[in-house]
Order: sequence, then C-alpha cells, then structure tokens
Amino acid sequence: MIECIFIGDELLDGRILNRNQQTISAMLSNEGFLVTQATTLLDQKDQLEDFFISAQKRSNIVITTGGLGPTEDDRTTECIAHAFNLDLIKDDAIYDKLKDYYESRNRPFYKSNIKQAYFPEGAIILNNTEGTAPGFALHHEDTWFFVLPGVPVEMETLLKKDVLPMLNTHCAEHKRFKETALFKCYGIGESECADRFAALYPLPDQIEITFQVKFPEVHIRLNSYDKKNSSTFSMLEKQMTDLLGPSCFTQDIETTYLDYIFNHLKKNKLIAAFAESCTGGLTSSLLTSLPGASDIFDFSVISYSNASKSNLLDVPVDFINKYGAVSAEVAEFMAESCLKKSKANICVSITGIAGPSGGSGVKPVGTVYFGLATNTNIVSFKEFYPTSRTRFQHLAAYKALSLLLN
Amino acid sequence: MIECIFIGDELLDGRILNRNQQTISAMLSNEGFLVTQATTLLDQKDQLEDFFISAQKRSNIVITTGGLGPTEDDRTTECIAHAFNLDLIKDDAIYDKLKDYYESRNRPFYKSNIKQAYFPEGAIILNNTEGTAPGFALHHEDTWFFVLPGVPVEMETLLKKDVLPMLNTHCAEHKRFKETALFKCYGIGESECADRFAALYPLPDQIEITFQVKFPEVHIRLNSYDKKNSSTFSMLEKQMTDLLGPSCFTQDIETTYLDYIFNHLKKNKLIAAFAESCTGGLTSSLLTSLPGASDIFDFSVISYSNASKSNLLDVPVDFINKYGAVSAEVAEFMAESCLKKSKANICVSITGIAGPSGGSGVKPVGTVYFGLATNTNIVSFKEFYPTSRTRFQHLAAYKALSLLLN
Repeated sequence: MIECIFIGDELLDGRILNRNQQTISAMLSNEGFLVTQATTLLDQKDQLEDFFISAQKRSNIVITTGGLGPTEDDRTTECIAHAFNLDLIKDDAIYDKLKDYYESRNRPFYKSNIKQAYFPEGAIILNNTEGTAPGFALHHEDTWFFVLPGVPVEMETLLKKDVLPMLNTHCAEHKRFKETALFKCYGIGESECADRFAALYPLPDQIEITFQVKFPEVHIRLNSYDKKNSSTFSMLEKQMTDLLGPSCFTQDIETTYLDYIFNHLKKNKLIAAFAESCTGGLTSSLLTSLPGASDIFDFSVISYSNASKSNLLDVPVDFINKYGAVSAEVAEFMAESCLKKSKANICVSITGIAGPSGGSGVKPVGTVYFGLATNTNIVSFKEFYPTSRTRFQHLAAYKALSLLLN
Repeated sequence: MIECIFIGDELLDGRILNRNQQTISAMLSNEGFLVTQATTLLDQKDQLEDFFISAQKRSNIVITTGGLGPTEDDRTTECIAHAFNLDLIKDDAIYDKLKDYYESRNRPFYKSNIKQAYFPEGAIILNNTEGTAPGFALHHEDTWFFVLPGVPVEMETLLKKDVLPMLNTHCAEHKRFKETALFKCYGIGESECADRFAALYPLPDQIEITFQVKFPEVHIRLNSYDKKNSSTFSMLEKQMTDLLGPSCFTQDIETTYLDYIFNHLKKNKLIAAFAESCTGGLTSSLLTSLPGASDIFDFSVISYSNASKSNLLDVPVDFINKYGAVSAEVAEFMAESCLKKSKANICVSITGIAGPSGGSGVKPVGTVYFGLATNTNIVSFKEFYPTSRTRFQHLAAYKALSLLLN
C-alpha cells in the first residue's frame, strides 16, 4: 500500500482546493507507483497520531503534506515523533540556516520558528529550497514516511528532488508494471462503450478497462499490470479499436475533441461560420478558445431574438411564422444565409429550446435543429436533449461542432 | 464525525483533480457542518467494503461520491449493500425513467444500465436531474450515508437539492455554532482585499476572515464560532462593508455576478447586444447561460475576421486600415453599429489580441478595447491582460459584461 495524508483545517472547511493529491498521484504513477489511498485530516493532535499509527501498519510508503510551518497548529512533526515514541532532536545546521534566513530579511526569529529545526531521531532531512520548512524522510518498521510541506511549489520540488529518487532506490519492489492504451471517444455514452465490449469480459487477470467521462469525451483505457500479458494486451487493443470504430477520434493523450475538429478544418482548408440561437455563442466560443482560430473561423451571428433572425440572416417573418423559429426549415435557412454572407465554406446553424420554459407539446424543451450548409449541400438534423439549460447548451454546441466533420 | 469518501481509480492515478472535496467542504461548512476526514479510495471491492464498515463505526455522517455509473468498475452501491448485509432492490420508477431516458434519445437500453435502478433496502432515492445515475441516502445504525455520483455538476445538484436539507432536518445536532457574513466582490484581487482589511487585524479569538477566489468573483467571509462574539461580529461586518464599498456587489449567497448583471438589465428595462471579436462569443454565451435571457438580450455579431467587421458591422475597410482592428475607434464603431442594427438599448463591443500570437510592440498580446454605445453616449475603454488566451478571454468577457452596469 502507498498512501498520502494531507493535513490542514483549510483543506476540510472549503477554503482550499487540494491540488497536491493529483500532483503526487500523477508523479508517482508515471514512475510505476500507484497511490492506493489518500486521506485529508484536520490539525488535531489525537486524530493525527492515531492515523499515523494505523497508516504505518497498513502501508509501505506514506507521504504526508502540511503541518510543518512555525505556527501553533502545525503539528505533523511532533505527532509523528510521539506516535512512534521517537525523540525530537535539534538539527544545528537547519537551525543556523533558519536563523540566517529570518535575519537576512530583517524579520524576527521567533521561538515558534525554532520548532522547524527539530526532527524525529533517525529522520533524513529533505532540504527545502523554496521555503523555510524542511521536509524529512523516516524509515520506521518497514514503512517509509516522506513528510513534506503543504505549499504546492515546495511540495513538488521536494517530491522531484528527493522523494522520487529515494522511492526508486529503497522501494523499487512496490513498483508495478503498467502498460496502457487510451481511446478518446465522442458521441458514445459510457454504457454503450461498456456494452460494445461485453464480449471482451471477463478480462484476464491483471488487465482492466477503465472509463472516464471528460465532457464531451469519454476516455477508455486498457491497462495491463503484468508483462506476461503483452500479447493479450495487443490483441485486446486491436479488438477495442475495431469495436469503437469511428467513435474513437484519437489515441493521443494531448488531442482534445476540439483540437481534432480544428485539425480537420485546417487540413481540409475549411473555414467555418455559425448562426447560433439557443446556444447563445457557446459554439463559437468553444472553437475560438483555440489559438489560431482565425485560420478556420470567419464569424458568427447569434440571432437570439426572432427579429434578429430576420434582420441579420434575412429569414422572412412569414417563414418563421409558418414553420416556427425552432424548425428544420429555419435551421436550413439560417445556415444557408450564413454561408452567403461569409467567406466560410462550411456553416452550421443551431435553433432550439434550451428551457427551462418556452417548450410546447409538439416542440418540448430540449428540442433542437441543426442546419449544415456547404457549397454543395444544405441539410438539417434534429436532436432532443431534455436536460438542464447548461447541459443542453453544451450538448448542442458540441453536436454543432461535430457537424463540421461531415 | 463527518466524513467524505471519494471513490475512483482516476482520483488516485493522477488523471483527475478532485474538486468535489472542496465543494462539499465549503457547502457543508456554510451550513455549520465541519468535515473531519476525507478519504479517496480505489474501485476495489474489498477495500471499499472494509472502509464503509469502519466509516460507519467512526462517523455520524458519511458522504460518498463516485462509483454509481453503469460500468463494471462502478461498485459503490453493491459494496455498501454487501458491507451492511442489505439486499439490493430494484426501483421500478427509476428503471422506467432510465429506460425512457435512453429510448427517447434513440439509444439502446443496455443490460449494464439496469444496475443503476437497484438500491440497498431502506435507501431513499435522490433524483439526479443532471445525469442518469441517481444517488441515495441510507440511515444505517445511527449513521447517515449520502451516496452521490462523482460528476461534479451532478454531485453538486444533489448536494444542494437533497443532502443539505436532509442534514438540516436529521443531523442538526452535529452542527457547530457559526455566524457568517459573506461579501461577494468583483474587480478586486485577493491581496487588495487583504490590504484594505489590514487595520482589522489581529482578529479576536474565534473570529476569522477567509478569502476564496471563484472567478470572476472573490468571496470574503467573516466567520465567528462563538455566540459571545456577536457584537464584535456586527461591528466587524459594518467595517468590512465600508472598506469594500461598491467592490462588493452582493451579500446574497445565491446571486452570482452574472445574475447581478441580469437583474440590473431587467430592472432597468435594458436590452443588450454585443459585437465580439477576440472573445469569440464567450460574452454572449455567459449572458445566455441564464434562463430568461431573451428578456434582456437581442443578438450578437462575432466579427472575428476583419472582413466580417466590414460585412456585418459596416466598419469601413479604410477605417480598419487607419486605426487597426484593435483600437478605440473600431471598438466604438462596432458598438454603435450594433446599436443601430438591433432593438437593444445598450451595446458593448470587444476587440483585442487574445494571443498567443498576433501582438506587436505598440499593441502587445493582452491589449483589448471595449466600446459602449447607448442612446445617449458612445465611449471606449482599454484594458491590458497579459496572460493565457483562455484567461484573457474570460477577463475580457466579464469586463464587457460589467460595462452593462454603466
């Protein structure tokens, strides 16, 4: 077991977002060490001491952050010493360094600062180049403790400089082999993916398939933790590739679905324009969040009111009255009009009912029509997203963007 | 004890930043409930079951997130049932709802979805309006379990809608005294706030001032944990109100800065329109994310290319050549043109250099001009946001929206 302990009231009362957990997890995972548990605790002496004792029994590697500062509520070092019946010993070199640090900045060296120079007997001091509180490593009854400051930049520096090398030297037996294949999918739900893979189950021992929704993408990973599985792994990867087909838009970890659309437009010398209604600019906003958007995007008209559909996109009032603003006919007209007014060669329109009000029996909230106009074709699509306004807008915007791949 | 359990391999291998911990901690803390421990665990059956059993012994309130999806590695419900020897019972209403959900989207209802309709006996189902996985509450041997999905928007919705009211009804004895005054600010940094408050320090015992950045807002809270401090608390609240002045736009927890702008427009019978360039639709998208946007918004033109500034907003090509597309003159022209073409009575334009490329010595990346046109006035403003493209776009979009308050 490898576990992390994050210490500090501010992590449990909502003041602070704990980013250290992801940093430690990712850096360890890249080296082949899997964190199996992570716990956040208050600055409370008894709770901390009990927890250190149970963590030592349970785990081979324990990484703590926080509680190393000079104030009264920084208790990590004393609690570890007390939990394991170790004396606290003053380190003269650190003491002098701390004293120098404060004096050179004309800041008084308070009594409370002195405690940062004390460490449990047997501790290996980890020099903090980014702040005053040094960390330490302690090997106690077959468990390695790595005790780090909570400030992210200080924690990360010590992790890289000291902890990872020590783990590789002293704890290599807790590394595990890991081989991963990533499939990034769009337009397919988590459960549909799971069902397509039904025939692959039960999976061989030490192989797993994981799913992760990163809206609007689903990330599927095939993981193997045993070298001997390497041919099975390749076979499974091939099967998954076939089963996912075009639902998988990339296997590259860096490429988002937006990047994929951007790259498609650029490669095919396409320039897009949008006529948005219910998505209110979200479609355009997503595409223009990418650097270099001017190469693939001309303009958008956000014709939110019916009047603006006529004024800006020339949709005749009669036409809107006859078919309704939310209709295949108006969607197609908007897309075509957008194409005529722009230097774009692919235009998408979106008109729908985002809600929460504005629906009818025939066209309930969640109804949305998309128009797609190119130099050769004008078509429309209908979707139904009966969900919250925000989710409706995001689903519709990504659907509109996906039409640029047609 | 009140504890949280976050479930999912993706939280421990570095794939995901766990934001749910802060959300839950903050929302509970605002109601007077202090989270005392938070643990992240892998999707492993034995570890989960053992942990649920120990959590039940230790804590009065247990909130879990994650592991409620349809896939094989979603195990929270079955582990809780198994840990406490409870049968899993199918809920017909949820079953039908799930089936409808998939069928209404023309998506097949897979076997794997069915398990989302099963709950431990005695569970109170918490309806998930944002996704398919319902949560549930379970009162088992003096411990309340609240079992929520891991997707942040789903988790947060259930927390607000169901968990907080149930905690207040069933667990009020675990609240601690807390008096809070909230100040929501826009246009002022965390350190500037801290500076304005310098004279208030040192604070009396059991009173604290906390800062939290919730872009684009800064939330400042005055907290007191002792009833006896009530007159000091009132005095401090008054002082803080004076020191913040108009930087504080509301003291109401529910009102966002967007709501505040929306309410201002509605109250003053204002209708907005935008001419956006570098923000690419983000400004319009933010305003139209609010229900009822059609009452206060007419249309936007996202004139991203220079050609579209001329085609759609009639900015003469000469004019752009003379002053540059990123200039006070073009910003004012865009806003005025927008006003002429719309039924709006307040128009804001945005033209700038979002980067990372496109800057020059005179107009570096981060330069942005805003135009503001009303029936009585046309003015422009300049800002400089030398930061990432995404942050630039968000800063500029909120600045544009803030001009609607002029």
